[in-house]
Amino acid sequence: YKIEQELKNSILINAALSLIGYFITVKLIPVASRYVLRANLFGRDINKRGTPQGEVKVPESLGVVVGTVFLVLAVAFQYFFTVDSNWVVEYNAALASICFMLFLGFLDDVLDLPWRVKLILPSFAALVLLMAYAGHTTIVIPKPFIPYIGLEVMHLGWIYKLYMFLLAVFCTNSINIHAGINGLEVGQTVVISAAIVIHNIMQIGASTDFDYKQAHVFSIYLVQPLLATSLGLLAYNWYPSSVFVGDTYTYFAGMTMAVAGILGHFSETLLIFFLPQVVNFLLSLPQLAGYIPCPRHRLPRYDPVTDKLTGTKDGTLVNFFLRVFGSMSEKSLCIYLLVLQALACCFCFFLRYILAGWYK
Amino acid sequence: YKIEQELKNSILINAALSLIGYFITVKLIPVASRYVLRANLFGRDINKRGTPQGEVKVPESLGVVVGTVFLVLAVAFQYFFTVDSNWVVEYNAALASICFMLFLGFLDDVLDLPWRVKLILPSFAALVLLMAYAGHTTIVIPKPFIPYIGLEVMHLGWIYKLYMFLLAVFCTNSINIHAGINGLEVGQTVVISAAIVIHNIMQIGASTDFDYKQAHVFSIYLVQPLLATSLGLLAYNWYPSSVFVGDTYTYFAGMTMAVAGILGHFSETLLIFFLPQVVNFLLSLPQLAGYIPCPRHRLPRYDPVTDKLTGTKDGTLVNFFLRVFGSMSEKSLCIYLLVLQALACCFCFFLRYILAGWYK
Ligand SMILES: [Mg+2]
Ligand SMILES: [Mg+2]
Repeated sequence: YKIEQELKNSILINAALSLIGYFITVKLIPVASRYVLRANLFGRDINKRGTPQGEVKVPESLGVVVGTVFLVLAVAFQYFFTVDSNWVVEYNAALASICFMLFLGFLDDVLDLPWRVKLILPSFAALVLLMAYAGHTTIVIPKPFIPYIGLEVMHLGWIYKLYMFLLAVFCTNSINIHAGINGLEVGQTVVISAAIVIHNIMQIGASTDFDYKQAHVFSIYLVQPLLATSLGLLAYNWYPSSVFVGDTYTYFAGMTMAVAGILGHFSETLLIFFLPQVVNFLLSLPQLAGYIPCPRHRLPRYDPVTDKLTGTKDGTLVNFFLRVFGSMSEKSLCIYLLVLQALACCFCFFLRYILAGWYK
Repeated sequence: YKIEQELKNSILINAALSLIGYFITVKLIPVASRYVLRANLFGRDINKRGTPQGEVKVPESLGVVVGTVFLVLAVAFQYFFTVDSNWVVEYNAALASICFMLFLGFLDDVLDLPWRVKLILPSFAALVLLMAYAGHTTIVIPKPFIPYIGLEVMHLGWIYKLYMFLLAVFCTNSINIHAGINGLEVGQTVVISAAIVIHNIMQIGASTDFDYKQAHVFSIYLVQPLLATSLGLLAYNWYPSSVFVGDTYTYFAGMTMAVAGILGHFSETLLIFFLPQVVNFLLSLPQLAGYIPCPRHRLPRYDPVTDKLTGTKDGTLVNFFLRVFGSMSEKSLCIYLLVLQALACCFCFFLRYILAGWYK
C-alpha cells in the first residue's frame, strides 16, 4: 500500500511538471518563432493559397520547442523517480530514442531530405530502443486460441523485437503522413495521448499485479508531458495556424507514443488508438510503394472563393474523408478528423471492455 | 581470463565498427554538404577575407554527419555488448546526453542563439547524465593528504555530482571556444581522444581490478568511434577547410569526451588533457564575464598580402600564442596549437608516471 501511494505521488509530481511544461511551451513558442523565421525556416499555408493569409511566412518546425521542453522535463523528473531501478535502463533508452528522433526530425526539416530517406529515419531511432530493450519477449496467447496452440504464453525472442521495431517505425511515420491540415498533427497527438493516459490510469486501477502497474505508470511518465506540451503547441497551431510544427514534431510525438506503448506493454491497444493512421497508411500505400506517382504534397484542393477544401485523388484519409462527406472548410475538416480519432479511441475502450475476461 | 578475452574481443569489434564509421563519414560529408548549402547553412572563411577563398560559401555544421554516424554506430555496437549489464544504464544515459547535446548544438547552428544562451545549452545535456548517474560518488584521497584528513576514501554525495555536472559543462564549452582556425576544433578532439584511448589501454593493461578495467573499456567504446569519425571530418576540415563543423560538432565532441571521462572515472586525467582549453578559458574569462566588451568573433587579424595571422587583444589562446610567437600562417598556427595539445597530453602521462604509487 505504501508503494501504491508512492506511485500515485510520482504521477502527481509528473502532472505538476507537465503543467509547468505547458506554460513554458506557451511562453517559448513566440520567442522561438522569431528565431526560426530569421533562420529562414518558414512555410506558406498551401490550403489558404489565393488569400492574403496564404502569403504570410508561417514559422516552421516549432516542434523543437515541444521536444526540448519535453526532454528537460523528462530528465528533471528523474529526480523524483520512485519506480524500480530496473526501469531506469528503459527510461534512459526511451529518452535516447526520443531525442535521436527529435534530432533527425529537425535535420529533415532543415535539410529537406528526399522522402525515401525520411521514411527510414525512424528506424535509426527505433534501433536505440531495440538494442536497449531488456524486457520480456513473450506474448500472452488469447484464450480462444490456447487449445489450438497448446501454450498460454509464447516466447517469441527476436520476432518480438522485430515487431517492436516495426511498430515504432510505423507509429512515427504514420503520424507524419496523416497531416497537412492546420492543427491535425498536434490534434491527433493530443487525442491519442489523452486516450493513452486514460487507458493507463484504468489499468493501474484495475490491476493487482505490481509489475503490470509499473509498466502503465512508466507510460504515464512519458505521455503526460507529451500531452501537456502538445496542448501548448496546439494553442498556436490550431486553425488558422500561426506556427507550423514540422517533421520535428510529428517524428518526436510518434516515437514518444510508440515507446510508451512498447515499454508499457499495450502495443495492441495502441494500434487500435492509431486506427485512422492505419487506414491513412493503407490508403497511402499505392503511392508510397510507387505504383501510383506520388506528388510532393498530397493535399486537398483549396477554393479561395468558397473557402472550402475538396478531396483529390491522392490516397490519404484527408482526401477520402472529403470525397465521402463533401467539401468543407479546413477548420471543420480538422474537427471531424479529430472526432474520428476520438471515436477510434472509444471503439478501442469498448472492444477491451467486451473482450475482457473472454479474450485474455 | 575468459572475461579478459571477451573484453578484448569487444574492443576489437568496436574498433572495426569505428573503421567502418570513418569510411561512412568520408562518403557522407560531400553528400551532406550539398544539402546544408541548399539549406543556406554556410559560412565564409573570415581568416581568408580579402582573397578569392574568403568569398566561397563553405558548408557549415557538418558535425551532424559525425554525430549521426557516431550514434548509429554506438547503438549498433550494443548488439555486441559484453560488459556487465549494469553498464547498460550508463551507456544509455551517455547516449541520451550526447544525443541531446548534438540536437542542441544543431539547433544553435540553425537558429544562431545569443551567446549567453549558448553557454547554458550544455547544462541541459549534462543534466541527463547527472540524473541517470548511479555510480559511486566517492573520491580516493591522495596519499600525502590521508594523515591530515584522516580518511582514505571520502564520500562526497551531491558535491561529486555537482563536480560531474560542471566538468561536463566546462569540457563542452571549452572545446567550442577554442576554435576559429581551420582544423582546430576537430584537430584538438582527435589529439585528446587519441590520448584518452591510449590512457584507457594503459590502465586496462596495468590493472587487476575488474571494475576498474570495465570503466576504461567503457570509455574506449565511446571515444574510439569519436576518434574515427572525427578523423573522417578532419579530412575535409583541415586547412584550407572545404567544410565547417559548427557548434553541432564542438558540443557533441566535448560532451562525448566529458561523458567518457566521468563514467570512466578518470576526470582529473581528462582535465590535464584539456590544459590548453583550461588556459583558453582562463584567458577568455574577462570577456565572457563581461568585464571587457566581447565582440561576435574573437579571431586574429588576417593580412591577405602576407597570408599571415596576427594576434589581437582578444583573450584567447590563439591570440596569445600569436602575440608570443609572432605572426604566422593559419596552417602553421593550427599545427603548433595541436602540438601544444599533444604536449599537454604527454605532460599528463609523465605526471601520472611520476606520481604513480606516491600520490594514489
Ligand atoms: Mg511532415
Ligand atoms: Mg562554435
